[in-house]
Amino acid sequence: MVQVLNRGSSRVQRRSEARRTEILRAASRVFRRRGLAAAGMREIAEEADVSPGILYYYFSGKDEILLFCQERTLEHMLAAIEAARAVPASSAERLRGVLQAHVHAMLDELEGATAHLEVEALPEALRAPVMEKRDRYERAVRALVADGIKRGEFAKADAALVTRAMLGAVNWSARWFRPDGPQTSAAVAQSLSDYLVKGLLK
Amino acid sequence: MVQVLNRGSSRVQRRSEARRTEILRAASRVFRRRGLAAAGMREIAEEADVSPGILYYYFSGKDEILLFCQERTLEHMLAAIEAARAVPASSAERLRGVLQAHVHAMLDELEGATAHLEVEALPEALRAPVMEKRDRYERAVRALVADGIKRGEFAKADAALVTRAMLGAVNWSARWFRPDGPQTSAAVAQSLSDYLVKGLLK
Repeated sequence: MVQVLNRGSSRVQRRSEARRTEILRAASRVFRRRGLAAAGMREIAEEADVSPGILYYYFSGKDEILLFCQERTLEHMLAAIEAARAVPASSAERLRGVLQAHVHAMLDELEGATAHLEVEALPEALRAPVMEKRDRYERAVRALVADGIKRGEFAKADAALVTRAMLGAVNWSARWFRPDGPQTSAAVAQSLSDYLVKGLLK
Repeated sequence: MVQVLNRGSSRVQRRSEARRTEILRAASRVFRRRGLAAAGMREIAEEADVSPGILYYYFSGKDEILLFCQERTLEHMLAAIEAARAVPASSAERLRGVLQAHVHAMLDELEGATAHLEVEALPEALRAPVMEKRDRYERAVRALVADGIKRGEFAKADAALVTRAMLGAVNWSARWFRPDGPQTSAAVAQSLSDYLVKGLLK
């Protein structure tokens, strides 16, 4: 049902992908303005400046749009974990990198983050793959924290709880960040990750 | 429209207050189970084991129930700020106390927290008083952080950003905490506040 994001690189495919992304951004603006429950496919089509027929060609319905937003954000975040693991670095540096990528995933795709945070808005049948990815991501962040404790780089702590505190702090940024505000997402990512990792150090 | 929580202490008033609280808890369970949008007054009445007539005697509708949940939680949190200010203590101790009270407000009234977090679910006309209290609370926490920096007790930091990070981390606890899980809310409050304040210290 959901098409895979990277299906190759032919020109047609790239154009189709760009169109999907445009539609997702438009949908996310509607979600944000109207709330997930009240947003309708007709309004999303208008916002994306496409006909309803074109919209339904790309997405079978609102639930698929939501699912796609959530999966895409989580895939970005899982990729950041892989990248952090691949470089030789301290646990603090790795964790800062992951948290910064997480902040960027939340804020640079700000409209998408709204949908990302509301997994309950998905019909139950569609939640499982999103929950599975989300759990996988949380476990991977927790493993980075536990590893830092084991190496003696971080103070002893409840890795599960601290991980949830960190993820809560970065997820919450989507609630208050304003793209036209005084700080860039990069500045927020830097300050948040510095503060959150500092609380772990010995 | 919304009646004041503490209207005196006569027996009739206390009983009425207890009944209102019971209804709010029942409503919150329904919100949690069904989502805010899908929850109906009939279902809330059934959950609270009262007739629809009794329910409407206490609350004019779902919006008033939501408003009441949100205002009550924020009043608890504002009272904790006042309490922290009233005692001679370090900034770290004060902030830990406030964050612990915040965690308790989120977790001990777990069902209520769901409604508390969804200010967007209120009709726009009802949001203003809740937003005003929420802003007042955030400003007060930020002032505690700024005061600790001024005293030289905390390292230099962006007080506004750090405050939002802390509030995000504690608000998020309502998403993952399970009353039947391995940790008490008191243990979570302690660990979270220790971690979040530690990131501020020099």
